Amino acid sequence: MSELSVLAQQVAEATRALPAAVRRHVAVTPLTSLRAASESGDAKFLLKCEHQQKTGSFKVRGALAKLWSLTDDERRRGVIAASTGNHGLGVAHALAALGGTGLVCVPAGASPVKVAAIRRYGVEVRVTGAEPAETERLARRLAAAEQLTYISPYNDLSVIAGQGTVGEEIVQQAGDRPVDAVVVAVGGGGLISGAAAAVKSAWPGVRVIGASPVNDAAMAASVRAGRVVEVAAKPTISDATAGGVEEGAITLPLCAELVDEWLLIEEAEIHSALRLMIDTEHQLVEGSAATGLKTGRGQPGQTIVIVSCGANIASDALAEAIAPPREDVADSTGGYAGQ
Amino acid sequence: MSELSVLAQQVAEATRALPAAVRRHVAVTPLTSLRAASESGDAKFLLKCEHQQKTGSFKVRGALAKLWSLTDDERRRGVIAASTGNHGLGVAHALAALGGTGLVCVPAGASPVKVAAIRRYGVEVRVTGAEPAETERLARRLAAAEQLTYISPYNDLSVIAGQGTVGEEIVQQAGDRPVDAVVVAVGGGGLISGAAAAVKSAWPGVRVIGASPVNDAAMAASVRAGRVVEVAAKPTISDATAGGVEEGAITLPLCAELVDEWLLIEEAEIHSALRLMIDTEHQLVEGSAATGLKTGRGQPGQTIVIVSCGANIASDALAEAIAPPREDVADSTGGYAGQ
Repeated sequence: MSELSVLAQQVAEATRALPAAVRRHVAVTPLTSLRAASESGDAKFLLKCEHQQKTGSFKVRGALAKLWSLTDDERRRGVIAASTGNHGLGVAHALAALGGTGLVCVPAGASPVKVAAIRRYGVEVRVTGAEPAETERLARRLAAAEQLTYISPYNDLSVIAGQGTVGEEIVQQAGDRPVDAVVVAVGGGGLISGAAAAVKSAWPGVRVIGASPVNDAAMAASVRAGRVVEVAAKPTISDATAGGVEEGAITLPLCAELVDEWLLIEEAEIHSALRLMIDTEHQLVEGSAATGLKTGRGQPGQTIVIVSCGANIASDALAEAIAPPREDVADSTGGYAGQ
Repeated sequence: MSELSVLAQQVAEATRALPAAVRRHVAVTPLTSLRAASESGDAKFLLKCEHQQKTGSFKVRGALAKLWSLTDDERRRGVIAASTGNHGLGVAHALAALGGTGLVCVPAGASPVKVAAIRRYGVEVRVTGAEPAETERLARRLAAAEQLTYISPYNDLSVIAGQGTVGEEIVQQAGDRPVDAVVVAVGGGGLISGAAAAVKSAWPGVRVIGASPVNDAAMAASVRAGRVVEVAAKPTISDATAGGVEEGAITLPLCAELVDEWLLIEEAEIHSALRLMIDTEHQLVEGSAATGLKTGRGQPGQTIVIVSCGANIASDALAEAIAPPREDVADSTGGYAGQ
């Protein structure tokens, strides 16, 4: 437990500075008790319900903060993002909420449901590139050529500051309850960096735990190596956390400083967490949220907040993930929160 | 559009009379826009989100109203209910909220997850009977023998009045928006009777539409016959609306008077509504709620409220229902609200 670095303090300060004009376009999501998980006699678990956020994920927070940070001139020229999912929806929601023009690039073969959801905000969708990494390269090239502002899903201080409002809300909503740990699913690290800076500003002793699928955990590997490393990723139902870390990402030093512990989660454990959320909490969450839900039992007397980061999951992928486990496949008998 | 009958007026009056002491134990669930369904250019659809209600279904409303209606002596002797699902949870929540003793009977083989959920409220669960109808008979016999108050899931004016608060909320939440129709899934008919009495008291011209699975639609058949009839039920994912109508049920005359139109929904249509709720609304609903969601396109300019009545669905049943349709099986290409 030490002072926050200058960078982490900057993030927390940028979060605090976000005005009501930004915040009113974000839902203050509930912090609820995970009853079933809490009665085991071990830790008490609280769920930060970002799966109930507008657009179905926390990404609106960062997109709104970024759009707000632009100059009038930048906003007039327009923004561009590359995303098939939550980040694209977040940028679309932010554009509709704050005004401004923009463009969301998606790879060929992107889900028509997701493309339609982005278009519903009145935002242009351009199909470019064969797969996500190529779409991102082309979007960045287009940004440079047409003087558009490229909005990174995580490698941007304003975006990270926006995600930090999740941490601020946890602090406010916990009230007098002492919180021992906060668990967040990690992809590029934007959410955990912002949320950790906010909660550690208020509670210097709180532990921040990062959870990633063992199949695709580039940030955990990069923090371990002390530099951005590529990992040989395998498929994961946690598609929102999948993908490599960008060279020079500011989330790398932030995660290295702010994340106290890493959990690498097996696919079967993510599946069982999805099932348990449906069976006992009657809530739909996406794979990345289920990744964060698998946290172990904790210690008696502890209070642990789990950030459930989104609910955008395709029904066909969900059907496959929650199908009863086959007898010949080893499956975790546990579930979220160590049940 | 005529005057309500004395019975329907009684129901609406009993709903209005429910005090704050009851209402504060119920969540006022959101009335949200079904964006994707509303953009087709036909009717505008609003969703009454009872799937976000405490315990995951509207049943808490009726159980609270019934428990409140008891004398001190009756409450001291205790209540008894027979249910494997939402009604049992509703009674358990009501007992925990208002105080009193009670017992929930479940058949042998009831889901351990559901039994655990009821016990979590500190309420005794007794396993009795081989299947639901036998469990109900045994619970009624026990009620008579031990002077307990048997709480019917729908055949009780107080229970129906409690469900009516859903209708009251719709009227309040719609504000100045004229609502043309309200769609409700029908099993025993408690929810639609209470909700219809409340909305028709405020809006005499509103149409009330009942939706049941074609596989198990005892109330629709009974209304058509003018008396309680048994139907040869087939299995349905809408388990919360399944089952026969009790001889002498007061919901039969109420439904006959208050329901303007009946929709009989195929299983494949319920499945596609479940998928669409996940893919475009990011919400988990149970089969009965999905039944109500399949309402046709409506007319341009109309506003139609769909009551989404619950979210208690087992993950294994959901997995089967939302699996991509096999090519050799005829499936509806539509979804909820006629998409």
